[in-house]
Amino acid sequence: MTTPTPIAVVLLSGGLDSATTLAIAQSRGFEVAALSFRYGQRHAIEVDAARKIAESRHVTRHIVLDIDLRQFGGSALTANLPVPKHDSVDQIGAEIPLTYVPARNTVFLALALAWAETLSSSDIFLGVNALDYSGYPDCRPEFVAAFEQLANLATKAAVQDGRRLQIHAPLINWTKAQIIRQGLELGVDYALTTSCYDPDDVGQPCGRCDSCLLRLRGFAEVGIPDPLIRPAQQL
Amino acid sequence: MTTPTPIAVVLLSGGLDSATTLAIAQSRGFEVAALSFRYGQRHAIEVDAARKIAESRHVTRHIVLDIDLRQFGGSALTANLPVPKHDSVDQIGAEIPLTYVPARNTVFLALALAWAETLSSSDIFLGVNALDYSGYPDCRPEFVAAFEQLANLATKAAVQDGRRLQIHAPLINWTKAQIIRQGLELGVDYALTTSCYDPDDVGQPCGRCDSCLLRLRGFAEVGIPDPLIRPAQQL
Repeated sequence: MTTPTPIAVVLLSGGLDSATTLAIAQSRGFEVAALSFRYGQRHAIEVDAARKIAESRHVTRHIVLDIDLRQFGGSALTANLPVPKHDSVDQIGAEIPLTYVPARNTVFLALALAWAETLSSSDIFLGVNALDYSGYPDCRPEFVAAFEQLANLATKAAVQDGRRLQIHAPLINWTKAQIIRQGLELGVDYALTTSCYDPDDVGQPCGRCDSCLLRLRGFAEVGIPDPLIRPAQQL
Repeated sequence: MTTPTPIAVVLLSGGLDSATTLAIAQSRGFEVAALSFRYGQRHAIEVDAARKIAESRHVTRHIVLDIDLRQFGGSALTANLPVPKHDSVDQIGAEIPLTYVPARNTVFLALALAWAETLSSSDIFLGVNALDYSGYPDCRPEFVAAFEQLANLATKAAVQDGRRLQIHAPLINWTKAQIIRQGLELGVDYALTTSCYDPDDVGQPCGRCDSCLLRLRGFAEVGIPDPLIRPAQQL
């Protein structure tokens, strides 16, 4: 008798971090169920990237769920506010930026938990990172730990069936360069990802938002060009 | 200078408990922002009830958000499974029933938190009840406490702005009869609510699902008929 392959739900935004996280989940022996959201992002390009990444990694279960967070308002990524731009990564401030989406990771993890439970999965992977990041409160280790505690009180899976739910955030203490190195080792095709908060009409990254700058620095540290960014904008 | 009225986000399902919770939030001096969901319930009647309740309580902010939990499957309330029926309330089992929706209250609270943050509200009200209930894990005090802890780690409101977010579950230790008495005192019109898991085509409750039976017993204890149920089905 063979043990069935365990399933992990992986939150897949279409960005560099979540693509790497998906590959890590696979490398740890999980069959991946990928979950993406159309939450009123101004750029549906993220969902396209998520689809391409899932396909390139042979993921057979991929749900793209609609939740219209625009109804709540309040973020540069969902409302009509300007995305902050900088000339270098050192100018990224200590304050939580305008691009913060209220309670986003709480909402995404809650929905991942719902799906995990129906799949009889005990494992959720999330590509948050507390180092090379934009200062969002819901990307910190204490947030991830608190959600794991909640999950083990909230669900029939844990309370009645005695399963221990785990929230994995394998990138949480890594630099962007470490993330990229790990992803390259696992065969992640970063040309399929998208990270920019403010791409142009044809999907070309701006190269100057927090997300672009952090990513560019990561590739510069690894010593290879970011496959998404024009040569003139490389660091 | 007058202090602005504080806003509370109230989860409003259209049922007896959430209607009472809304009235309690108002009685405590909050301006209510009501949040309801179309989550693939087989019975859209719940959303209609929520709208009528909100209107009857003069709530000006009411969002009905679509989330298609059917994509995940796994519950009698969203999938095509039979709703369990009983002849009396004593037959309701100790097991978590089929009507359990995976992680539902986690998902609903997460979205309430997102809205609370954009409204600069520090208060969320939830009509869960751990006494006369169907044994759902996400209706227990420890679940509510864990979510409150999470909320205070997850949000810019708490982490940067120093607001203390509170999850209020005023009914959590009350019997259904206590809930009904409190609601009647606050002028709740229970004829507008709906609780049945399996109403017929014209919205008439079945009178035999867990939710109908618990409600009927509550009204019987208060000594008045349930305004929704036909005389022959009253306890």
